[in-house]
Amino acid sequence: MVGHHPDGVTHAVDNEPSPHDLDRPEIPSIDGTAERAALERQPTLTKPPGSLGRLEDLAVAIAGLTGDPHPDLDDATVVVAAGDHGVVDRGVSAYPQAATRAMLENFLNGGAAVNAIADAVGAETLVVDAGIVGDPVPGALSVRIDSGTNDASRGPAMSRADAIEAIEAGVRIAGSELADADVVALGEMGIGNTTIAAAITAALTDAAPAEATGYGTGIDDEALERKVAVVEDALATNGLDAALSSTESGATSIGESDPSSELPDPIDAFARVGGFEVGVLAGVALGCAADRTPVVVDGVISGAAALVADAIDPAVRPFLLPSHAGAEPAHAIQLDALDLDPLFAYDLRLGEGTGACLALPIYRSACATHREMATFDDIGLDGEP
Amino acid sequence: MVGHHPDGVTHAVDNEPSPHDLDRPEIPSIDGTAERAALERQPTLTKPPGSLGRLEDLAVAIAGLTGDPHPDLDDATVVVAAGDHGVVDRGVSAYPQAATRAMLENFLNGGAAVNAIADAVGAETLVVDAGIVGDPVPGALSVRIDSGTNDASRGPAMSRADAIEAIEAGVRIAGSELADADVVALGEMGIGNTTIAAAITAALTDAAPAEATGYGTGIDDEALERKVAVVEDALATNGLDAALSSTESGATSIGESDPSSELPDPIDAFARVGGFEVGVLAGVALGCAADRTPVVVDGVISGAAALVADAIDPAVRPFLLPSHAGAEPAHAIQLDALDLDPLFAYDLRLGEGTGACLALPIYRSACATHREMATFDDIGLDGEP
Repeated sequence: MVGHHPDGVTHAVDNEPSPHDLDRPEIPSIDGTAERAALERQPTLTKPPGSLGRLEDLAVAIAGLTGDPHPDLDDATVVVAAGDHGVVDRGVSAYPQAATRAMLENFLNGGAAVNAIADAVGAETLVVDAGIVGDPVPGALSVRIDSGTNDASRGPAMSRADAIEAIEAGVRIAGSELADADVVALGEMGIGNTTIAAAITAALTDAAPAEATGYGTGIDDEALERKVAVVEDALATNGLDAALSSTESGATSIGESDPSSELPDPIDAFARVGGFEVGVLAGVALGCAADRTPVVVDGVISGAAALVADAIDPAVRPFLLPSHAGAEPAHAIQLDALDLDPLFAYDLRLGEGTGACLALPIYRSACATHREMATFDDIGLDGEP
Repeated sequence: MVGHHPDGVTHAVDNEPSPHDLDRPEIPSIDGTAERAALERQPTLTKPPGSLGRLEDLAVAIAGLTGDPHPDLDDATVVVAAGDHGVVDRGVSAYPQAATRAMLENFLNGGAAVNAIADAVGAETLVVDAGIVGDPVPGALSVRIDSGTNDASRGPAMSRADAIEAIEAGVRIAGSELADADVVALGEMGIGNTTIAAAITAALTDAAPAEATGYGTGIDDEALERKVAVVEDALATNGLDAALSSTESGATSIGESDPSSELPDPIDAFARVGGFEVGVLAGVALGCAADRTPVVVDGVISGAAALVADAIDPAVRPFLLPSHAGAEPAHAIQLDALDLDPLFAYDLRLGEGTGACLALPIYRSACATHREMATFDDIGLDGEP
C-alpha cells in the first residue's frame, strides 16, 4: 500500500516508513484550582464528612478533570464502534462474522442491550462503522478504514497509516459528534475482538497471551486453547512477543518510536494486532481528554483502546473512568495497568458499552450530591461532628 | 396499657397486655409462571447467553417477584423515615439530636444527599416523620408514634403497642402513597439510629454487640467503646442478650410469641430496642411485598428494618433487594443473614436511602434489557453460539 500525505511526500507504509505522524490534540493536565475548590466544598455539605465514601472522591476527581468545581455529567453519549477482524478465520469466536453487521443494524434499530441500558440511564447512542466487512450500513456514522482487518495471527492486522487513520477518526468524532457531551462511554462490537483485545493487552503489558485470553462471548475449552495459540501467533508474527514485554508490572511505557531500537512505537504495535474499532475508541479517548471530557471505559475491548491511548499519551489517564470488572481475564490486567478501580462486578462479557452505561448514574450521582446539596450554613447547623 | 385482641383474648406483652396483634397483609410467594417465562425469554435475546451476567439473574428474579414476565421499575420512590432516639442521652452520636429535625427539613427543601441522588436517578422522595422530638414538621407525612423513643439502654424503647403502630403505619404507607410505585427504596434519618440498628442486629442474629457496633457517622474510638456498652446495656436491660442469640448463623427465626418460653416475639424484641423509623420501614417492606413491589434495602438502619420485617414474616425476603455494602459492621451481618449479595461497595455511611437510590438504575437496566431487547428471530440471526 502506498499513500500520499497532505504534504505531497509519498510514503511507503506497513513495515515501511510512516506516512505522517499521528495528528492529535494536546491533553491538558488536571485543573488543580477546580479540584481544590471541590475538595474545600465537600466538608461544607450537609452530611458527615466522608459519609458518601467513594462518591466524594469521584466528585472531586471529576471536578479536577473537567475543570468545573461543580461538574455535571447530564449529557452522556455511548459510542458504539464496530469493526471486523481477519483473525476470525482462525475459529476464535462462537459467532459468525455476519453477527457484527447484524448487531450493528440492531444498534441502529434500538434492539441491543446497550440501547436498552442507554435509554434506562439517559444516554445517547452513537453507532460508528469503523470498518466491518461488506458494504457500509446505512444510518451508522461511517469512518470505515477498510472492510475488516487482515488476520493478525498471520501478519499485520493493518498498516500504520490505517492505524493512524482509525485513531484520528476517533479524535475527530470527539471533536464533532461528542463535542457537547459531558461524559462519553466507550462501546464496541466486532466478532473476534476479544482475541484482538487479548493480543493488545499482552503486547502493551507484561501479561502472557495465556493470561490475557478468555472465553469471550462463549467459546469452549478447546476453542480457548486455539484462541491462546492465535494470540501467541499474532504476537510472534508481528514481533511483539518479547519486544514489548515490560520488566515491571503495569502498562509498558513504550515511548516514541526509536529507529535505533527494535521496539515498535505504540501506534505500530497497535497496527500489527489491530482492530479498527479499537483504534477509533483510542482516538475518542484522546480527543475527549483533550476537551476535558471524562471517558468511561467498558469491558476488555474498550480497555484495550484505553491501553493504546495511554501508551500513545499517558496524559489521557486521569480522564479515563472505570466502570465494571468484566469476565475476561485481560480486563483485570488492563484495569490494573491503568490504575482503574472498578465500580462493580456483574460478570458482564457483552461489551457494546453496557457496563460503561451502567456506571453513568453512579458518576452523575456523585456530581449531583457535590453540586446540589445544601451546606451546613444553609440549614443553620454546625457541621463539625 | 391493656388491649383486647379481636378474638377477645387478652395477651400479655411488654410486661403489659397488647392492644391487638399486628394487622398485616399476606405476602404472596414468587410467581413461578412469570419467573419461568422470563427465564425462557433470556436466551432468545440478541446477546450471547449469560453475557449480561448478574443483570440476567436480577431480571428473572424481578419477573418472579413482581409477577410480570417483562417487569419495569420506572416509578420509584425512596421513603425517608425519620425518628428520634432516647439513647442519644448516652452520647452515642457525633451529632446533636437537633440534627434529625434539621435534616428532615433539609429533605423537604431538597438539599440533602438523597434528594440529589433521587433526582439524578429519577426517583420520588417521600419524607415521613415517624416520631422525631418536638413539634411535627410541616410538609412531612406524619405518622408520629411519639416524640422520640425512650432510652433503650435503660428500658424498652417503646411499648408493644407503639411498635405495632409504627409497623402498621408503614404497611398503610405502602398501600397508599406507595401503591403506584414499581420499586421502593428504604431511607431514614435519626440521630442515634446506628446504635439502635446495632442493637436490633445483635438481637435478631447471633452477632455480639461488639461485632455489630460501628463508628456510625463519625465517632472516635472512645465513643465507640461507649456505644458498644450502650448496645450491650440495651440488650441486657431488655432481656435480649441471651434469649435471642441463635445457635446457627444467620437470622434467628423467632417465630410467633410463645407464652411458655422466655423468648419475646419479633415485635416485642423490636419494641424493646426500638426505632420508630425502623418500625415504619419494616412495615413499608411488609406492605410492599404484599403488593409484589420490590424493596431496595439501603444501609444499616434499613437493613435493621429488613431484619425486623423478615423476623415477622420470612415471606418478605424475596422482595428485598440489596444495594450497597456499607461501612457499618452490622450491615454485613444483616446482608448475610438476609442472604443479600450487595451490588457495590463505596464505603457509604450516610443512610437516607442514598445507596438504595444508587442501585435503582442497575435494577432498571436489568429489566430494560430483558424487556426491550430484540430477539435473535427479530434480527434473523441464529442465537446458538
